[in-house]
Amino acid sequence: MSVADAETGLGTARLNGELDRTTFQLRAFADLLDEGSFVEAIISPADAAAKPVARPDVRRMLVPIGPVAVFTPSNFPLAFGVAGGDTASALAAGCPVIVKGHPSHPGTSEECARALGAAARDAGAPQGVFTLLQARDLDVARALVTAPEVQAVAFTGSLAAGRAIYDLAAQRPQPIPVFAEMGSLNPVFVAPAAMSARAAEIADGLAGSITLGTGQFCTKPGLVFVAEAAAGEGRAFAKLVAEKVTSRDPGVMLNAQIDANLSRQLARTGALPGVELLARPAERAAGGLTRAGGVVTTDLATFLSTPALHEEHFGPVSVVIRCPSADSVIDVASSLEGNLTATIHADEADALFGKRLASVLSDKVGRIVWNGFPTGVAVTWAMQHGGPYPATTAPAHTSVGVTAIRRFLRPVAYQNAPDALLPEALQRANPLGIQRLVDGRWTREDS
Amino acid sequence: MSVADAETGLGTARLNGELDRTTFQLRAFADLLDEGSFVEAIISPADAAAKPVARPDVRRMLVPIGPVAVFTPSNFPLAFGVAGGDTASALAAGCPVIVKGHPSHPGTSEECARALGAAARDAGAPQGVFTLLQARDLDVARALVTAPEVQAVAFTGSLAAGRAIYDLAAQRPQPIPVFAEMGSLNPVFVAPAAMSARAAEIADGLAGSITLGTGQFCTKPGLVFVAEAAAGEGRAFAKLVAEKVTSRDPGVMLNAQIDANLSRQLARTGALPGVELLARPAERAAGGLTRAGGVVTTDLATFLSTPALHEEHFGPVSVVIRCPSADSVIDVASSLEGNLTATIHADEADALFGKRLASVLSDKVGRIVWNGFPTGVAVTWAMQHGGPYPATTAPAHTSVGVTAIRRFLRPVAYQNAPDALLPEALQRANPLGIQRLVDGRWTREDS
Repeated sequence: MSVADAETGLGTARLNGELDRTTFQLRAFADLLDEGSFVEAIISPADAAAKPVARPDVRRMLVPIGPVAVFTPSNFPLAFGVAGGDTASALAAGCPVIVKGHPSHPGTSEECARALGAAARDAGAPQGVFTLLQARDLDVARALVTAPEVQAVAFTGSLAAGRAIYDLAAQRPQPIPVFAEMGSLNPVFVAPAAMSARAAEIADGLAGSITLGTGQFCTKPGLVFVAEAAAGEGRAFAKLVAEKVTSRDPGVMLNAQIDANLSRQLARTGALPGVELLARPAERAAGGLTRAGGVVTTDLATFLSTPALHEEHFGPVSVVIRCPSADSVIDVASSLEGNLTATIHADEADALFGKRLASVLSDKVGRIVWNGFPTGVAVTWAMQHGGPYPATTAPAHTSVGVTAIRRFLRPVAYQNAPDALLPEALQRANPLGIQRLVDGRWTREDS
Repeated sequence: MSVADAETGLGTARLNGELDRTTFQLRAFADLLDEGSFVEAIISPADAAAKPVARPDVRRMLVPIGPVAVFTPSNFPLAFGVAGGDTASALAAGCPVIVKGHPSHPGTSEECARALGAAARDAGAPQGVFTLLQARDLDVARALVTAPEVQAVAFTGSLAAGRAIYDLAAQRPQPIPVFAEMGSLNPVFVAPAAMSARAAEIADGLAGSITLGTGQFCTKPGLVFVAEAAAGEGRAFAKLVAEKVTSRDPGVMLNAQIDANLSRQLARTGALPGVELLARPAERAAGGLTRAGGVVTTDLATFLSTPALHEEHFGPVSVVIRCPSADSVIDVASSLEGNLTATIHADEADALFGKRLASVLSDKVGRIVWNGFPTGVAVTWAMQHGGPYPATTAPAHTSVGVTAIRRFLRPVAYQNAPDALLPEALQRANPLGIQRLVDGRWTREDS
């Protein structure tokens, strides 16, 4: 933990929380394996009388896809790190894993790899089930993605790096899937009645979500759309958010490059016509990377005509967009690209607006949050952490939650196989006692 | 039906069988929608006391991915045609479909599109839910794959065309998934005891499978590996297969180009050193495209060192490879590329061999057939028609069987949503009565 703190500056409270989440994730996948139904066993028994033709006995289940390469990000050294969710789900699927550690925290990666290696030995897992690779050289990353043995890639990081890996994998003689979780703007929408009833409460929650982890979470709310019921309401709300953000303690940026990128980007954004910088992230302390949050505001027309405002500010910064009507909010939602999350603040009087907005957003994002905030991703069975491009390269999948295992599995059907030669999950007596779909009916009975 | 027969020459018996399969497929997806569990509803109720952090209410289900482009092949004008499995599964998922008809049978495509269009109108489906596009011009195909609205492509056809579409889709500003089902060699393995006990029976079944549909099925057995228990056994078996193939009625090739390709390829194969052509497909009748089956044989060393023998002969031709031992059969199985199917003929005395072989093959194919033949794909819940590249570009999916719907769905999670604004599948009272995974437990109860 002292190594992780020295490398990341995140502090032991945050790091301990992340460690809890990491071990929780590993246990959740262990529970999933114990429960066993994740293999999606489907059995169609033989039927000589079936129409239009007689049917053989066919039994289908999911099997491991093969070796998986995992690229870890800088922003979650533990939960998305060497022993993080991608590694956990790939190992749970039965795939060997080669992790490319992030150069921001090599010592932390090494410690995690040692712990995983020891656990693998204790559990009697085959040698080579897990490997850590550390390098700054891009050729190493390229060699990993193009290695013929590698059958899938999981990646968390920037759009540029994620897309480069996707392109490389698609150009292989045998193309392989890349599950890249990249940037996201995580738009927040505030409906008129909610704004009237609880502007201060929403602003306070937003400030917490914008500055959590110094804004370096993939679910940080980067855009806030406010439907103005009265002139000036949006600007007043933006000022309120700026105030709340400024009053919070500054946090630490992950590394000097991220910090410098944010400074440069924000200087450009603040100079755009029609854009106001209401709160500027505090300058770094001498040699340090400490930053408070920042808030920018603009009107809808400026937002729509300014591509730079559609780019993620990676750090504790959000853009509040003042929209002239509820309808204009629905329209701008329809025009957005893919995101991990969208958040709707709507009260009972906003129900129709909320319903229309949610319908539009379900085509745009992987998770819709009602009257809450997108940070703090719950690691549960139902969680979906993914979304249409450019949020990810694989919107049919998630990188958080136990269904993340589905990325590394593929179906195999066995036709008229002798019972003793079938995998246990498919044997007639159902020795694993798992739930199976038999002739269209869910059951744990023999078949 | 007269249009289809005139365009394809397949005969009304085959075409009626295919029509039965096509309507059966459409009804199977209708049943799947009625049953409703295909949305994979997962519910993680709120838990304020959860560790390491309190959990919100999260409800996740699958939603349509968006408009789907379907490219149909020449070899199944109905079952994989305009109203075939790809269209049926995409429409069932709730996605609008644009079909590119195959130039081999434009009239058949038009008839199918009319029937589908009438059914869509009768059912009150929105306009534009289904469109047929017919063109020989490759620019039309390119425009379809690169249209920003299209969110997925389903394709059945050759490796060259499938890979070209995959590459084009991967290079889009927003890359999209391509579910291409391409060629397959469908290796058959005959174990020593099975060979001793029932060589004639296996040879007869193989001949039927090789010549079914004049060998133009994606599951045609293209390679047959025989583990010789005694010298000369493999050649005797190959001759037996050749005899059985030759004794069958000739069939009709789908079009002149496929017929010419097969002739050219077979002339090259027959001239290879170490390769014997035991039965040559009958020359075409004057102006016709009628062909009997062909059988080629070679030894294992020649097979391993001759890349041309690893290419599919699209038509009623199979290559019998004589292997010196059971171990050498396992070795060659390990060296194969991805295939849709593999078939094992093994008797009780072959159990250990069969087990080792099945273990190797489960990494290589989507379906393993025991003591049968790979053609005649049963359209059942458990069917898997897919496999590792180059058989498909998406081994985690199938193009036959009701799980084919999974290609066109993606998950969305709703966090703390008001019950009335949730999709019915996720509402607390479970108004659809579907099975849902609630807090890790399968149930149809409220939650």
